Amino acid sequence: MSVDRRLSINQGTIKHADLATALAATSAAGVPAIGLWREPVQEVGLATAATMLADSGLRFTTHCRSGFFTMPEGPARRASIDDNKVAIDEAATLAAAGADGSTAILVLVAGGLPDGSRDVIGARERVRDAIGELAPYAAGAGVTLAIEPLHPMYASDRCVVSTLGQALEIAHDFDPSVVGVTVDTFHIWWDPEVLPQIERAGREGRIATYQVCDWKTPLPADVLLSRHYPGEGVIDFGPMTRAIVDAGYTGDIEVEIFNADVWATDPHEAVRRTSAAFTAAISPHLPA
Amino acid sequence: MSVDRRLSINQGTIKHADLATALAATSAAGVPAIGLWREPVQEVGLATAATMLADSGLRFTTHCRSGFFTMPEGPARRASIDDNKVAIDEAATLAAAGADGSTAILVLVAGGLPDGSRDVIGARERVRDAIGELAPYAAGAGVTLAIEPLHPMYASDRCVVSTLGQALEIAHDFDPSVVGVTVDTFHIWWDPEVLPQIERAGREGRIATYQVCDWKTPLPADVLLSRHYPGEGVIDFGPMTRAIVDAGYTGDIEVEIFNADVWATDPHEAVRRTSAAFTAAISPHLPA
Repeated sequence: MSVDRRLSINQGTIKHADLATALAATSAAGVPAIGLWREPVQEVGLATAATMLADSGLRFTTHCRSGFFTMPEGPARRASIDDNKVAIDEAATLAAAGADGSTAILVLVAGGLPDGSRDVIGARERVRDAIGELAPYAAGAGVTLAIEPLHPMYASDRCVVSTLGQALEIAHDFDPSVVGVTVDTFHIWWDPEVLPQIERAGREGRIATYQVCDWKTPLPADVLLSRHYPGEGVIDFGPMTRAIVDAGYTGDIEVEIFNADVWATDPHEAVRRTSAAFTAAISPHLPA
Repeated sequence: MSVDRRLSINQGTIKHADLATALAATSAAGVPAIGLWREPVQEVGLATAATMLADSGLRFTTHCRSGFFTMPEGPARRASIDDNKVAIDEAATLAAAGADGSTAILVLVAGGLPDGSRDVIGARERVRDAIGELAPYAAGAGVTLAIEPLHPMYASDRCVVSTLGQALEIAHDFDPSVVGVTVDTFHIWWDPEVLPQIERAGREGRIATYQVCDWKTPLPADVLLSRHYPGEGVIDFGPMTRAIVDAGYTGDIEVEIFNADVWATDPHEAVRRTSAAFTAAISPHLPA
C-alpha cells in the first residue's frame, strides 16, 4: 500500500498511544509526518519529546492544541494566556526538532461560553483580544497560530468560532505568518460558503493547516467522538481538497479522528487504516 | 400569570397530545394561538381538524411541516411534491378556520442527503427546484412557504439548508408573500451572521414566522431532542428578538421544543410552563 507523501497522522487519531508508540506507529506505517498533542508531549517532557521526535525522522506538522481564552479578565484568563505561551514555545521546539519541512503551527480552539454566560458576542471579542495579546509572542517564536473553526454544535461549550469566514475575520488584523486558520473538513463541510471561504483563505495567505476526517450520522452519544476515517461518511472530499490545492496550499494534510472505535484499535493498525483511507479518499484530489 | 398575546404553542412541544388535547391545553392556559403538526391533523381528518380549531377560538400560526425534497427526479420526488401540495392545502384550510389573525404558513424542512449521496451542493439545488415547482401552487392557495434553516448538526440527515443567509438566497427568486423563512433561535443562534441576516430577512419581507426555544449542552444522545424552554439554556434571546422586532415582524411567536422530558410532562402543565418561560425570557424584548 503506497503512502501519500503529504499525509500526517494527528496524534488525536491514536489518542491512547503514548508519544513513543505514536511515533513508532507512524514511522512503521511509512507515514512521513505527525501532529502532536500537548498532553503526551508534557508526559515525557518537552526536551525528551523533541529528541524522540528528531530520532523518529518524522516531520512535525502541528501542535494541538491551545486556546480556550473566552473568559473575562481575571486570574483564569491570565493562566490561559500564560499556558498559551508555553504551548507556543512547545510548538517552536518541536518544529525545530522535526525533519526538514516541519512547520511551527499551534492549533487554537477558542473555547465556549464561560460558565453562566450567554454572551457569545462578548466571548468572540475576547478571542480576538487574546490572539492580539499572543501574536507578538508567537511572532517572536516563529510560530503560526491556526484558529480552528469548530462545528456549530460545539459553539456553546467548546468553540465560539464556528465558520471559516469568522476565523478569517479574526485573523484579518494580523500578519498571515503569525495568525492563520485550520481548515478541518469535519467542522465546515456543511457550510454553504465553504468553497469561497477556502479560496479567500488562500488568497489571504491564511491556510496554516488542512485536516481531514469524515462526518456521518447518527451521531454518537458523545458528539465529540463523531469523526470517521475519510470515506466512511458523507463528506465529498473532492471539492474542498481541490479548493485547498487551488488556494495554493502545498503543506502536509493531517487526519485527526476522535472516535471511540478508532481509539480502541491498535495504534499501528489505526495508522495503517488512516493511511489507506487517505490514499483512497484524499490522494486522488491532490496534484500528482 | 399573564400570558403574552403573541405566544403560540407549537404542537411539537406537546408531541404526544392528540389534536383535541393540544387545543384544549392551549386554550385552558389562556394562550391565544397554536401551530399544528400534520400527523395529528390527519389523524382526525382535515375537515374535522378545521372544525375543532374553529371551535377552539385559537389563532392558527403555522403548519408543521413539509419539505423533504432533496431526492433526484423519480417517483419518490414526485410523491414528495404531491404530498407538499396536500400540506399546502391543509395549511390554507386551517388558516381559514383559525381565529382572526391566523396565518397560512407552511414550514419547510429541506431534507438531508439522499441515501448514498455525498452531493450536498446538488441536494441544495434540488431544494430550490422543488420550491420553484411548489411556489405557484402555494400562491394559488394563499399559503406562504417558510424555509427553515436547521442547525448544521442536522445537515446530512435532515436539512441541507443550515443558515438564514442560505434560506434567504433560496427565497430570493420568489415573491415574499409566497416564499419566506422560518427564524428559529435554536438553529441559528450560533451564527456570527445571525443579526445582520435577520435584518436582511426583514428588509426583504421574508420573516414568515419566529420560533423560540433554547440550546444547552451536553446534548442528549438523540440530538433531535436537545431543545429547551426559553431561559433554560445559553441563548441570549434579547439581541435576536429585538432584531426581529426591528425588522418589522409583528406576528405571533411560536415555542417549539423537542425534548423527551417536556414530552413526558402533562400537556396542560407543559403549556403553562412554556407560557411562563416565554413571559420571562421573550416578552421583555417585545414592544409593550
